[in-house]
Amino acid sequence: MLDQSTICAISTSPGVGAIAVIRLSGEKAIEIADAVFRSPVKGKILNRQEANTLHFGQVISGNEIIDEVVVSLFKAPHSFTGEDIVEISCHGSVFIQQRILELLIEKGARMAQPGEFTQRAFLNGKMDLSQAEAVADVIASSNAASHRLAINQMRGGFSNEIKKLRDEMLHFTAMVELELDFSEEEVEFANRTELKKLTERIEILLRKLKDSFQLGNVIKNGIPVAIVGETNVGKSTLLNALLNEDKAIVSEIHGTTRDVIEDVVNIHGTAFRFFDTAGIRETNDHIENLGIERSYSKLDKAKVVLLVVDTQNPYSIVQGRIDKIRERVNDQLLIFVANKIDTGLKETIQELKRSVLNKNEKLVFIAAKDKENLDELIDHMVHAVNLDAASQEDIIVTNARHFEILKNAHGAIRRVLNGLDSGITGDFLAQDIRECMHYLGEITGEISTHEVLGHIFKNFCIGK
Amino acid sequence: MLDQSTICAISTSPGVGAIAVIRLSGEKAIEIADAVFRSPVKGKILNRQEANTLHFGQVISGNEIIDEVVVSLFKAPHSFTGEDIVEISCHGSVFIQQRILELLIEKGARMAQPGEFTQRAFLNGKMDLSQAEAVADVIASSNAASHRLAINQMRGGFSNEIKKLRDEMLHFTAMVELELDFSEEEVEFANRTELKKLTERIEILLRKLKDSFQLGNVIKNGIPVAIVGETNVGKSTLLNALLNEDKAIVSEIHGTTRDVIEDVVNIHGTAFRFFDTAGIRETNDHIENLGIERSYSKLDKAKVVLLVVDTQNPYSIVQGRIDKIRERVNDQLLIFVANKIDTGLKETIQELKRSVLNKNEKLVFIAAKDKENLDELIDHMVHAVNLDAASQEDIIVTNARHFEILKNAHGAIRRVLNGLDSGITGDFLAQDIRECMHYLGEITGEISTHEVLGHIFKNFCIGK
Repeated sequence: MLDQSTICAISTSPGVGAIAVIRLSGEKAIEIADAVFRSPVKGKILNRQEANTLHFGQVISGNEIIDEVVVSLFKAPHSFTGEDIVEISCHGSVFIQQRILELLIEKGARMAQPGEFTQRAFLNGKMDLSQAEAVADVIASSNAASHRLAINQMRGGFSNEIKKLRDEMLHFTAMVELELDFSEEEVEFANRTELKKLTERIEILLRKLKDSFQLGNVIKNGIPVAIVGETNVGKSTLLNALLNEDKAIVSEIHGTTRDVIEDVVNIHGTAFRFFDTAGIRETNDHIENLGIERSYSKLDKAKVVLLVVDTQNPYSIVQGRIDKIRERVNDQLLIFVANKIDTGLKETIQELKRSVLNKNEKLVFIAAKDKENLDELIDHMVHAVNLDAASQEDIIVTNARHFEILKNAHGAIRRVLNGLDSGITGDFLAQDIRECMHYLGEITGEISTHEVLGHIFKNFCIGK
Repeated sequence: MLDQSTICAISTSPGVGAIAVIRLSGEKAIEIADAVFRSPVKGKILNRQEANTLHFGQVISGNEIIDEVVVSLFKAPHSFTGEDIVEISCHGSVFIQQRILELLIEKGARMAQPGEFTQRAFLNGKMDLSQAEAVADVIASSNAASHRLAINQMRGGFSNEIKKLRDEMLHFTAMVELELDFSEEEVEFANRTELKKLTERIEILLRKLKDSFQLGNVIKNGIPVAIVGETNVGKSTLLNALLNEDKAIVSEIHGTTRDVIEDVVNIHGTAFRFFDTAGIRETNDHIENLGIERSYSKLDKAKVVLLVVDTQNPYSIVQGRIDKIRERVNDQLLIFVANKIDTGLKETIQELKRSVLNKNEKLVFIAAKDKENLDELIDHMVHAVNLDAASQEDIIVTNARHFEILKNAHGAIRRVLNGLDSGITGDFLAQDIRECMHYLGEITGEISTHEVLGHIFKNFCIGK
């Protein structure tokens, strides 16, 4: 399975930079590097240098000097891929990067496939499959929360969780399979009550992991926040204030925002995905009605709902809106955003202040136009997420492949539970347990096919 | 003048890549790196490690792991800047790059200005000013020829030439200034005939350098090649064939190409800058006439002129075009490109083959549409340039600042020559020589102002 060829690629971002790094990995990495490298120290060759050292010199092609470079030397197995690695740090001209790459290929290396360095790290046992997958997530992470999850997964947090689960199941299997050896004698080594307790524990663990995907996905892609409310109460203005730019069209005309505008903004290291929605009001405009329907449909997908109300309206109207939205909101955080307090009705504001909030409800007074009191609103939103994120100390699943596998594993363990309830024989139990363990092995890569690996690594960038 | 602060910047190309490199240079570089770095080896700190070594570990902020990284350690004075340098090779997520940069700044580094690492290399005597300038040219070089010039300049080839010139002048000055010391006595230590010979030698050297700028500029920006000829003879088709893409609009309608289309293409490592020009014919179309005028005006700027003629026309017409273009072309290489030989008139082709070529003229038969015989055309073009490039073993000036200074230096040495002819006194001679030496010092940076440095390095990228 292991490809012994020496691979090379530009590992830094494509384009011109001050410096660029070209990576070379494989049995002949150092030999190939020596074929293009000339040290100012006469007779010095990389092959005789110690691991983890840096060497200044030139990359040459015959007598032509391609560049002055610094070479990093890593030796197997103490490298990222577990193979010998040479990294050439050259001037960041695209021309030079290409020339050096051509030279290395001329001397016997071949271009690396996307993710091939990481794939080799996996195949050489430097990391398991879920860790390898996390490398791509680390590179793609664009906010603190998703970055934290990816780093945790890359460092093996998720794998440890899976290993714990498999250990539990191994214990389980041992007991059941012992029974099978003596099946003629109809003994029960595995106490069914104990077995059931253990199965229930495993089922809970698997369910927790599986269910964490929703949160994981949300953290990765941004907490969905719906901004709803009557037309012209300042929803778009609020969105713009939060985004700090003028993405949504703001106007005085009722019903300006027809489309659901989405934007992701990082606040205190967490990504929020805002949905500005069409104003909710009775209208005969067909297109606008469609927009309003979309508003409501988005509500269910939101984790936080901001109901914006205009304090310039009489309290009865505002109260009506609040009651209406309460009907539509389930267990999301519902924040009543009382807008335009600089020009609002005293009575409305006072009544609002007296209103009784349910659990999961917050009330904030702002003036979106002047960005007044936005901090309090942001605090509520971040706080709501942090409550969820308390579970971040547990493992959160962010990878769709893992989620699919966990669903399958959970299905298998559910069958075990049902089997125990209906008193099926040990061999059926054992089969479901083995299936469950098989699935978990697919996550860590203990069980993997060429096809699965190809699918995983093709989405990596070249050079990683 | 030396700024003692520790500077940091992302040195690799901006954007997402497999890895990115963050560079830290200055007295506190290692100390600051230690404040964010945690080694898996307990108690290991970078400050106690040897120079030119690599270290795996984590970048941390408190208990939070920002990334797993490899740190390169360089120690003053044996580094690019001549200061302690730490390079952090991290995962290429923009988020991670930013976080690490923020952390380094939090721990006492400051963001580097554009080119500040190279500026420090200059200020610390690691390279002279013309070498520092070449670093930017190396990074910007996009073809073999400009790359070769930039590498040569970065490695000190140009500086050596300037130093040789200054040595010659020093000898000169010594002789003349000795006279000044004895000016009362009206002796001439410096033999005027010898002085004149020396001055003439210096003048020739300076002129050669100054004149090389045109070629240098051409190599840097591409050899200008004008494609001219009647309408519909296949100029645009030829350009497309050379460019290997469909940039110019090709059609059967006479006069399709009205604008002068420019494109740079690398052929055998040399950049050629092609100008497709409006077809030259009598026309009443005002806009097209403007285009034709531009065609002619571009001729003078070309180093190579390709006159495309259609062999489908009778020889008398073709001969007329050739005579007409001969009038307009001076000492450029003029290549007659006899196109459409697959459908051309036998008689025209035969007569063309019999025609007598002047020095600086070539004749090629092609079928542009089928890309037939393009290689021969390309060979002629490359050969023409290589004749010029024979002088590439000499030093070629590519930098506009150097060119301006060399013009001034040359002016000063010309005044010395005139002074010698008109027999002016030694003190006037000495003044002009000193001026000339002053200029040359500006090239190497022995004489430099804060303003000049600012101007030079502001065009660098950050991180270099």
